[in-house]
Order: sequence, then C-alpha cells, then structure tokens
Amino acid sequence: MAATQLRVAPPPRLLQPLAVPQRLLLGPGPSNAPPRVLAAASHQLLGHMHPEILQVMDEIKAGIQYAFQTRNALSLAVSGTGHCAMEAALLNVAEPSDSVLVGLNGIWGERAANVAARLGATVHELRKPPGEYFTLRDIEEGLVRHKPTVLFLTHGESSTGVLQPLEGLGELCHRHGCLLLVDSVASLGGAPILMDQQEIDILYSSPQKVLGAPPGSAPISFSERAREKMLRRKTKPPSFYLDMLCLGSYWGCEGPSRMYHHTAPIQSLYCLREGLAMLAEQGLEKSWVRHRANCISLCQGLQELGLELFVKEEKKIPNSTHSKTLSPPEGLPTVTTVKVPEDCDWKEIVTYVMDKHNIEITGGLGPTAGKVFRIGLMGYNSTAANVDRVLQALRDALQHCHRSKL
Amino acid sequence: MAATQLRVAPPPRLLQPLAVPQRLLLGPGPSNAPPRVLAAASHQLLGHMHPEILQVMDEIKAGIQYAFQTRNALSLAVSGTGHCAMEAALLNVAEPSDSVLVGLNGIWGERAANVAARLGATVHELRKPPGEYFTLRDIEEGLVRHKPTVLFLTHGESSTGVLQPLEGLGELCHRHGCLLLVDSVASLGGAPILMDQQEIDILYSSPQKVLGAPPGSAPISFSERAREKMLRRKTKPPSFYLDMLCLGSYWGCEGPSRMYHHTAPIQSLYCLREGLAMLAEQGLEKSWVRHRANCISLCQGLQELGLELFVKEEKKIPNSTHSKTLSPPEGLPTVTTVKVPEDCDWKEIVTYVMDKHNIEITGGLGPTAGKVFRIGLMGYNSTAANVDRVLQALRDALQHCHRSKL
Repeated sequence: MAATQLRVAPPPRLLQPLAVPQRLLLGPGPSNAPPRVLAAASHQLLGHMHPEILQVMDEIKAGIQYAFQTRNALSLAVSGTGHCAMEAALLNVAEPSDSVLVGLNGIWGERAANVAARLGATVHELRKPPGEYFTLRDIEEGLVRHKPTVLFLTHGESSTGVLQPLEGLGELCHRHGCLLLVDSVASLGGAPILMDQQEIDILYSSPQKVLGAPPGSAPISFSERAREKMLRRKTKPPSFYLDMLCLGSYWGCEGPSRMYHHTAPIQSLYCLREGLAMLAEQGLEKSWVRHRANCISLCQGLQELGLELFVKEEKKIPNSTHSKTLSPPEGLPTVTTVKVPEDCDWKEIVTYVMDKHNIEITGGLGPTAGKVFRIGLMGYNSTAANVDRVLQALRDALQHCHRSKL
Repeated sequence: MAATQLRVAPPPRLLQPLAVPQRLLLGPGPSNAPPRVLAAASHQLLGHMHPEILQVMDEIKAGIQYAFQTRNALSLAVSGTGHCAMEAALLNVAEPSDSVLVGLNGIWGERAANVAARLGATVHELRKPPGEYFTLRDIEEGLVRHKPTVLFLTHGESSTGVLQPLEGLGELCHRHGCLLLVDSVASLGGAPILMDQQEIDILYSSPQKVLGAPPGSAPISFSERAREKMLRRKTKPPSFYLDMLCLGSYWGCEGPSRMYHHTAPIQSLYCLREGLAMLAEQGLEKSWVRHRANCISLCQGLQELGLELFVKEEKKIPNSTHSKTLSPPEGLPTVTTVKVPEDCDWKEIVTYVMDKHNIEITGGLGPTAGKVFRIGLMGYNSTAANVDRVLQALRDALQHCHRSKL
C-alpha cells in the first residue's frame, strides 16, 4: 500500500493546558515537592552528555553517597521509579543459578519474590505476619536453612508501617556468604540507615518520599562485594537498560571516561539533585529527629482520637520531641498505620478527608487492604502544622461517620 | 552494632539551587521543550491513583492512539526512556523459544539485538550498510531464511539519518507468521507512520524528540495480534515493571477496574500529555509537512556550504516547500546526517558551534562515529529560523576551521 493511499484519522478532543489542583499528600507517597524542586523541573532540557548534566550526575552521586552513608563508587540513579530500582537490584545480583531469600511481611517482599522468580532465581520466603519485623534469629534460621546468595529485606514497610531493624544483619549475612539487599524507598532520610557501617550490599530508594522529588529517577548503590558478584556472573543481566556495569560507566563510576548508555530523564535528574541537596542542607540527623518527632505527635493524636495503632509496639513518647536518640526503632517514622475502627467504612473516611479537607490519606495495601489507614509525614510534609491538619480532618471524618450511623 | 554507635559522615559541599543555561538543542535529541510543556513539569505532584492522574493517563492514551494512528486498546506510556520502551517491546513478545530478526543498519538495531540476546531469544541479523534502508525484498529473504517470530526495524535511524519505508512490511510479516516491531523514537510526528493501516504490531517512541517533552515516559502500543502472543507465553516476562498485561491493567487498557502497579512518574506524564496535545493541535499532516519542509531547506543550505549529505539518495527539493505529498521518503526529516569534510576535525566544528553560537549539533554515533555531523530539527525546534541559525553557525565554524589550517 503506497503512503499516498493512507488516511489520517482526526485528532482526539483538543486539550486545554493541564491544570493541577493543590492537595496535601499525606498518604504513603508521593509527597508534596518543595518549591525548589518544582522550580528545577521547569528548567529547559540539556543534552544527556553536556558537561552541566554530567556535573548534575556527579552531584547526585555525592548526594546519594551522603544520604546512604556510603563510599561506594557504584552509586547512581536508575532511569525509572523505585520499583525499577528494585528490579535493577535483583536482576544484577540474582541470576538463575542464585537463590534469593525474601523477607515477606508486607507487599514489598511479595513484589521482590515475584521479580526474583521472573528472573529464574530460586526464591525462598521468610514469612512474618504483617506488622512485625524480622529478628536476627529469624534471619539466621533462614540463612542456615536456605543458604541463599541474596537476602532481600524492606527497611520501611510502607504497606504495614514497620521499620526493619538493620543492626547486625549485614555482618550476619556475610558470615553466611550472602549479600544483603535492602529497600529503603519509604524510609530513606526519615530513619537512620548507614549503608557502609551496617554492611548493606545493595540499597535503593525513590525520590517521591522524604526527598520530595517526583518519581522517575531512583537512587541505588552497590558495595564492592556486590560488584564482584556481578563481575563473576555466568549470564548477562536480561536488560541493557539496567545493566549496572554499563550504567556505571555512563555515570562515571568505572573511571573518568563515560560511555553513552541511554538518554537520561533530564528533568528527573534536575529534581533529584535538588531533593538530595536539600536533605544535605538540613543534615541527616536533623531530618531523622524531625520525622520521629512529628510521627510521635501524630501517634499520640491518633490515640487521643480513640484509634489503635496497627504496629504492635507503640511508638514510645520521649520527654522531649527534640531527643537525638537513635535507639532501635519501634515503628516507621515516615508512614503510620492505624486500624480502621470496626464501626467505620475505611473508604468513606478516606473520601471524606479528601473531599472536605483536600488531604490525601490512604487505606491499606496488599496484606493490610481494608484493615488500616496509612498516613505519611515525609520530607517537606513532615511538619507539626500538617500533624494538626490531618488529625483535625480525621476527627471531623470520624464524627461524620458516627453521625451518619445514628 | 547498636545504632547509637554509628557515626554519620558529613554532607557533601552544599549546593546552590540548580541553574540551567539556555541552549538551542539541534542534535538528534533531546530537543528543546516548548513553554507549555515546561510549565506542566512544575505542577505539584498528585497521587498515582488520583482521578486527575487517571484522566491524564486516559488523555495520554488517546494522544498516543492519534500520534500512532491506532485503535489498539493496549496503548500506554512505560515509566522510562525510549530505551526502556525498546526493552518493554522485546521482553513482552520475545521469550527464549522465540527467534528475533533484527534489521541492523545503525546503532538501534545493534541495541535491539543486544537486548533480544539478553532475553535468551535466538537473534538473527539482517545487515545493510549504514545509510541504507531495507527493501521489501531484503526483508522477505530474511523472513524466509530465518523464520523469525518477531522482526525489529527502526523507522527513523537517528545514527545514520535513514528513514525506513514501512509500506507493505506488516502484510509481508504477517504472511510469514511474524510480528512487526518498529522503533519510531526519532521519527514519530516528523514522518508518516500509521500503525493500524501499516499493520505494525508493536510501536514505541520517546517524548524528547518531536513531542518536545522530557525523557522519562515513553509511548508504546501493541496490536491485538501482539497481545495474543503475550497471552500464549510459556514463561512470565523477566520484569514486573514492564509486564505489559499487568501495566495495561493499571492504564485501564484491560477493562474499567485498574490495578495498582507502581508509582508512575507523575511529572513526566504531565509533560507527555502536553506534548501529545500540542501535536494533536497542530495535526499530524501539518507536522509532517513542516518537518519535511525545514529539513529540505536545511539540506539545500548544507549543500550550498559545500557539504555532502550522508544518506545516498538526496532529499529531492520540491517546487513548493508546502507540498503535501506523502510520497515514499528519501531521508529522515527529523535528523539529517552530513559528511564531515576531509580537511576538518568533527569535534572542533561541534565545539565551535556550541561555544560561539550556543547551538548543539553532534557527531556520529556507532557506525557513523567520526564520519558525520547530525543535525536535528524536531518539534518545537523545526522552524525556518532555526535552519538559518544552524547554517550560519556551521558556515562560521567551517570558515574558522579553514582559517586555522592556513
């Protein structure tokens, strides 16, 4: 058929320029982005090999090394969302001859098990009820029984509100010849994580939580131990896009000469740079303390509303909200899960809070679907004023729910 | 090791908010984004399941269906760059039992062959010298010899400046029981492509070329024939992120109920919506005519400068640059390749044009590295004024190069 015979179908309804409502995003993410980040998003494009972009990439690398507390040379951002980083982590270190032990106490472990199985690796599940974390003893039993080459754990389990303690885990894994892979999508910047000192081999996160940048470019880092495992692979990773040794060359992690790899998501890099810069400006310790303090106020307020927290060990309320203690965590400071009262419809509450107060809170996800509300206080959104706003909105919604029952 | 014993390393040098220079991007992409697109990038985030975002996704779907000229229900944007869309295309239709025939006449065929091999598929190469396209006879010989289940071709070969004629190819592939997969990253909106009428089974593109939106969210569409092949798979695709049937559910392609899949890159979706809306506003035919007319002026000007076009058949200069003919193409209207004069250093010219005129043009890539300049006139940048600017800059650079030889 000659091109001249082809008929062009008419365009769809013509669209006005996009308008986006202002909304307070207090779900488990995305969070609102601060003005500095949004301003960066609207900068004009540059070429993906221009010196200014290579400098932005270097600044992102330094920002990730700080946020992750690592000196790993192989630290960069993959061109995708947090889920893409999870796949990048797994597909680089888990080939079909590998065995992956997945800590399964919420939706992110389920996802990791799904991905590892698709990669052809042998998957072993280590299960805990949603709302609980894994102890060193749980992990050691799993390592002894399954002899995995990689252990996957979620630091901030945003579907359940659990913070996984990390102390001693890396050392334990290494004693058993296993790499430690940790998802810190919902926890980075909100709770202490120190990649090198905690001997984490692969760590990834996502920008739309504490970093306050749009999803689309996700930080990841690999220890020398993980890098050596990649160099020993028998098969090539089933992706060029996420092949970390190729990508590392584009990011200047494998020496000064950079290989063109793909056209990076320029605007996402601009925003990620700003998010990381703002975290560095505040400082990790202050950010951890702020998230913890606001989370404690929230938990206190939720209990005063007669609600019950989902995570068993309640967040202890210290004498001062400015306490600098980094004691073992009792809950995830960024996302709080609270049980849906028996006499309420969760969806009605969530809808009411959105419609009347213009605030997003969400229901559960995966194992917590229908059982909990999830309230996020992350990055730019983790403020005392937002704690008050969301508590007021919830009080109002609960009263509305009870009134409509009368 | 208890958390209290951990030491936090100090932040890197604190960074000023990002500043980005204004630059005319006339390389093979990214192109400059129009103000409407950049304004959209700086809108506040919304949740990935908010009704406004689902509407943006529906509008993107309609925009892709128009730009691709398809009614395929399975039309959506993957959360990554154009290269990610290439992987999404291949990994959904090529499993280890498949055989993929790859048209190799530039870098994109090399990439596709690399990716298909990583997926475990049998890869056959159909080679043509860089600068040439495949004839129906070339393709038929390949189909008969290798009996592939998928044929990969690049419509706009941006490393060489070749436009692959598509007429009759889909029909030919289907007669041989093969799916037709086409990369239109560098051609979409700049040269005619009519997915349904040309019987293309899988088509993908990227926003940073004619659509004038930042990379980070890439359009892709699958025919019913391609979808059926996915339903018949023996193995799961080695990615959840890019599993088209899961992703299709999130995009509302598989019925009205949408499954949460991953946190979409919200700002990239905003921008892609605007890019697609602006293409629909102009209309495909006008966009094709504009790109062709400006490309012809450029080619004429390049020849007047004494330069030789790289693609053999020179772009014919019609009587009127407003000609509406859609006759078979002689070259790629979006990216023009021109030979580096023997007495010039390509890098010196490119650097001069950037330093003195603030314009990006690039050297070759892959098989054309060191041999050509590549000049892109795409979307917002395809204007008569930009043709003049880049010709003036090149004239100046060539004079400088000759002066420095004296």
